[in-house]
Parts: sequence; structure tokens; C-alpha cells
Amino acid sequence: MDSREQILQKSAEAKELYLPHISVDPVVFGFDQNELKVLLVKMNYKKQWLLPGGYVRQDDDLDEAVVRVLKDRAGVTDVFLEEFGVFGRKNRSQLYFEEFDDSLFQKQRFISVGYYALYNSSEINPIADDVSEACEWVYLRQLPEIILGMDHREIIEKALLTLREKISTKPIGYNLMPEKFTLPELQKLYEAILGKSLNRGNFYRKIKNLNVLKKLDEQRYVGAHRAPELYSFDIENYEKALEDGLNNW
Amino acid sequence: MDSREQILQKSAEAKELYLPHISVDPVVFGFDQNELKVLLVKMNYKKQWLLPGGYVRQDDDLDEAVVRVLKDRAGVTDVFLEEFGVFGRKNRSQLYFEEFDDSLFQKQRFISVGYYALYNSSEINPIADDVSEACEWVYLRQLPEIILGMDHREIIEKALLTLREKISTKPIGYNLMPEKFTLPELQKLYEAILGKSLNRGNFYRKIKNLNVLKKLDEQRYVGAHRAPELYSFDIENYEKALEDGLNNW
Repeated sequence: MDSREQILQKSAEAKELYLPHISVDPVVFGFDQNELKVLLVKMNYKKQWLLPGGYVRQDDDLDEAVVRVLKDRAGVTDVFLEEFGVFGRKNRSQLYFEEFDDSLFQKQRFISVGYYALYNSSEINPIADDVSEACEWVYLRQLPEIILGMDHREIIEKALLTLREKISTKPIGYNLMPEKFTLPELQKLYEAILGKSLNRGNFYRKIKNLNVLKKLDEQRYVGAHRAPELYSFDIENYEKALEDGLNNW
Repeated sequence: MDSREQILQKSAEAKELYLPHISVDPVVFGFDQNELKVLLVKMNYKKQWLLPGGYVRQDDDLDEAVVRVLKDRAGVTDVFLEEFGVFGRKNRSQLYFEEFDDSLFQKQRFISVGYYALYNSSEINPIADDVSEACEWVYLRQLPEIILGMDHREIIEKALLTLREKISTKPIGYNLMPEKFTLPELQKLYEAILGKSLNRGNFYRKIKNLNVLKKLDEQRYVGAHRAPELYSFDIENYEKALEDGLNNW
């Protein structure tokens, strides 16, 4: 079956299963090698990259739909998910399938609900579904080099802006960092999200004043270099600091 | 025409005009007498209160839809609007119209996109549409006393939480306060949004440190009392402070 036939077959199935006009698009972020990355699928059809999005079943709550879609399309489960924006321009989705007849389920107008998701990337092995030839992490740095379908570049940009806005009020560091990390690694995450360099001294002072980290007794040995100090989040204090971040008046 | 017939007539019109399954619900906030209030409509049918929501035309962008709906249902124009949440539980909207046949447009499953809006309430005269017997401001304090249809109480609560989260990053004060105000009035707005009392000295110090206010040369005379000092927002500095609020690392 070629990718075109596959699209037609999916259309027939979709008409039975899904609500028209509504889709979900999760932007899964990981942090690796001091860089942010997002999880994308490369579709068999057109070979463009897209977010691993999907549709809403008649009997799904919307929040259940996005969990199911992530599992089916990328093999991702147990992930922090939060809605961050709705993408509803009237021609955002139709052009992608322009060679098909208007009766194609996938070709109708979709208003898509964006969710950002945070994943400690060491734990995930993305699995492509049957309409995709790949499901892979792509570093944000690499995004300008690839072809992203529909308005998915805009959705990713808005998701990143959302991380920036929520860095002090949502468990973003906790969900993206490994369990044990060094302060320079945490600073790199903040820099990647904020899109700018931070002064090391200021960052250390601020993060320590928040009282959200606990220094571990162990160290990481890297060759002959001085062993860096390892930290973990102190969950209780971290959650309290997020509440204060909401409410620092 | 009774309210039941009116619902049936609207259903026939709606099937021609609107996308199925998607609605918008604006939560318009005003600030008056040192209290927050929201704009609600009281429907002819069932006499319950609802947000002044509506549907999305086939040829509307989603953002255009909510602007049109607010104008048509409440006579509200020129308002700061931002999407804040999507309400997609599968049975959230159907029960409201349970006495009708399932073919009724209004009775289908709707996933609703919530927008918060900010309005300087001195400038608005809400106008009810033809399916509502009233369109009125209701103080948040009064909400427990009224019957709110569907999940609109939950939508309002989430909208208020959003104001709380965004008080330092979105032009909330600017859009809710009158052009000229006193510091005690501004403090009352922050207290209403944050849902707690603030220490006066701390509040004055913090707000002055933000450098977003300009003291006016005029004063407000109230009987024999000492005239309170009047302030306005310094728009340029205010917008800069909001950006810093986004990015205070």
C-alpha cells in the first residue's frame, strides 16, 4: 500500500471514530546534551515532519485524547502534559492534503489544541506508527533545516514561549532534568528555555535562594577533573516555590 | 415564540452557519467598587446564567469568532482577549438541552475554547441578544448565589486562576483600572485577583520599584478628606516590566 492509499484508508476509519474539526498536537520537549529537543514524526505521505498529533474520539474526554494520541503515534506514556494554546486559523490544515478530494477526513478544517509535554529523554524510545517512517527527537537548533508541515513550526514556537513564561510556576526543571544533575547543567536548561545566556553567579544565587535543590553526598567522576557537585530537586520545597512563583506579591 | 421554539429555530440556522463541536466562551472581567465582576447572560430558556459564548463560523478564524460572539451576544467590542483553556469533557454540554432531540445543533458535544477578556467597566453597557433576557455584570462574590449552566462555573474559576498566574506578565492592571487611580485602588485590584490581603507598605514598595506608574499633578477631592494622590500607568515602562516579568532570570 503506498502512502496515498494509506491516507484514504485512514480517512474511512477516522470518519467512524473521531469528532470532525478538532485535533490535538502535543509538543514533547526533552533536554539532552545541554540542548532542548522536540519529538517529531516524519510522515510516509509527503515526507514532511509533523508533531505527533491526532484526533479526538467520540467517547474521549479531550485530555484523554491527547494521552492516547501520544501513546499511539510515538509510544510515549506517563508524561507531564498541559494545554497551552489553540490553533484555529481557517486554512491551517487543508492545504496539506490538497491533492485529495474534499471528502477526505484529514483534509477538513481542524482547530487544533496544543499541549506541551516534558520528558526526561533518557527514559524514552520513540516508536513510529504505521503512517510515519520515523519518530525522532529533533534539536531545536536543527528545526530551521527541516520541512515542517502545516503550521507546526508556529505551534512549536508558541510551546517554547509557554515554557519561558511558566519556568517559575510549573515543574519544568523537575520534569526535564535527570534525577541527579550539576548546577551548570541546570543553568544550561534555563538558558535554553529563556533563549539567552545567564550570569553564572546570579543564577547560582537565585536558584539557591529558592531553596529547591538538595546537594547530594555523591559526586560524578569525570577523568582527572575535579568532580562536580551533584544536586536533586527537593520536591516538597520545589512545589512550594512554584506556588510562590504564582503569587509573589 | 416561546424560548423552546426559539432554541429550535436557532438550531436550524446554526446548522448552516457553524462548525459542529466547537464553541468559544469568553470570560469578561471588570473591576468596580473594589471588586471583580464577570459578564453573564441569563438565557430565556431555563433562566440559567451562562457566559456569553457562541459558535465558530465556517469562514471565521477562531480568534475572529470570539470577537464576533462577544459583539453579538453582549454588545462588547475593543476588548483585550486571550485564550486560557479548553474545556473538553465529553458530557459537558449535552445535558443542558436534554429535553430536546439529539438532532438539535446546540445539544451536540462541544469542546469549548475559553478566552479571558479585560474591560474597563465604566465604558461598557452590556446589551442582551434575542435569546437572553439579561446581559449583566455579576460580582464574583455573588456567583455562589446564582445558577450557572453547564460547566461555566469551572470556566470562570480557571479564568480567575489565569489572571492570578499572569498578573506580572500581561497588561491586566492596565486593562482593568480606569485611566486615573489611587494606590489603594490598585492594591484592591491585586488583592481581588490574588484572593488575599497584601501588606500596604510591601505593595507600595514593590509597585513603585517596578517603575510602571506615573504620579499625576492632579488630585481627587472627596469631601473634607485629604485628597489622595492619583496615578496612571506609564505605558512604555509598563510593557517593559511585563517583558521582564516573563524573564526575570
